[in-house]
Amino acid sequence: MHTTVMPVTLLTALITVLALIFYIWTGLSVAGARSKHNVKAPTMTGPLEFECAVRVQANTLEWLVIFVPALWLATVYFSPAMSIVYLSWLPPVLGIVWIVGRVIYKTGYMTAPEKREVGFVISSLAVLALLICALIGVFVVWSAASAI
Amino acid sequence: MHTTVMPVTLLTALITVLALIFYIWTGLSVAGARSKHNVKAPTMTGPLEFECAVRVQANTLEWLVIFVPALWLATVYFSPAMSIVYLSWLPPVLGIVWIVGRVIYKTGYMTAPEKREVGFVISSLAVLALLICALIGVFVVWSAASAI
Amino acid sequence: MHTTVMPVTLLTALITVLALIFYIWTGLSVAGARSKHNVKAPTMTGPLEFECAVRVQANTLEWLVIFVPALWLATVYFSPAMSIVYLSWLPPVLGIVWIVGRVIYKTGYMTAPEKREVGFVISSLAVLALLICALIGVFVVWSAASAI
Repeated sequence: MHTTVMPVTLLTALITVLALIFYIWTGLSVAGARSKHNVKAPTMTGPLEFECAVRVQANTLEWLVIFVPALWLATVYFSPAMSIVYLSWLPPVLGIVWIVGRVIYKTGYMTAPEKREVGFVISSLAVLALLICALIGVFVVWSAASAI
Repeated sequence: MHTTVMPVTLLTALITVLALIFYIWTGLSVAGARSKHNVKAPTMTGPLEFECAVRVQANTLEWLVIFVPALWLATVYFSPAMSIVYLSWLPPVLGIVWIVGRVIYKTGYMTAPEKREVGFVISSLAVLALLICALIGVFVVWSAASAI
Repeated sequence: MHTTVMPVTLLTALITVLALIFYIWTGLSVAGARSKHNVKAPTMTGPLEFECAVRVQANTLEWLVIFVPALWLATVYFSPAMSIVYLSWLPPVLGIVWIVGRVIYKTGYMTAPEKREVGFVISSLAVLALLICALIGVFVVWSAASAI
């Protein structure tokens, strides 16, 4: 069991760092738009481009706090329980899908607010899948523990 | 020790998922109010009902990032240390109190902003209790480690 | 290995609780400014002092969600791998630097928005260093695992 879980955990750690770096990038875009349009802190409203950058960062923050715990719960409970059916790799793969969805969301939103939907749906579905994996993992481990 | 900690961790994992689902619900309420009052993204101001939904989600986010680490620190450090005095279950129970407090907060705030206080106090006290549990747990484990 | 990792984890737990308490303080400052300037919820705009308090809390939230996972990834992967070169203590030390930087940021921002930069830079560099530690830790553990 130890040898199966180990690489998945490392992959999940790596994807967590990548997600955090992507999120820092959304913050740098806000700083860039603030400087470009000369919006002085603490003001948070202004030209459309600035407000879109603000919303991309804020929405990514809103989902990051769901994504990170969901990713790790799935990795810790689902991956070891599912190693027998070769599904251990599913949580980090869903993590990659989330990051890709978020990149598409950011690019779309910065083009035009109504183009934010595709990336939003992709990344939201990845988070929902991670939450379902986490629940399945918890119940499988629970059943196994109760059976002893 | 292993058998005592195990079920608590599973319960805490389950409560984490529940808290994340509740938080997603606060986000869906913002989307619903945005659509109902026709507030186009990226605008974040508008009719009272929309702004209340925004604040419920934002405030839940502000506390979720304290709640999740506090819940897990309490579960990891306090629960095993307190199993001898039957207090292992305290962290997940406080987790349930937090979620209930947050549901009351949301319902109150959406009725009228000044009715947000009861739920806010309940959920804040649950978080403070979790932080105190975490601190107690860390010091108990520290003392035990130093004594060896 | 067990005896080296143990105290670092406890220190990291303690610093996490401290960071969360600091963050609660930024929230109390918002509540205080809201009350002082009579800004009724759900309004989030108003006098400069209120808006600065709001931004300090919001920006701390934005970085807290990077800081906490980065601190723990560094503690879990970097600290045990680096115990041989006496660098295990680096992640919690960087955690202290982050909190100090954030206190300077808050004090500066509340004096005048343009005085927020020193503390911002200190705390951001601490987070970047933690992310680098996490990456180094993951790769060292990965290499060690592959070598077996």
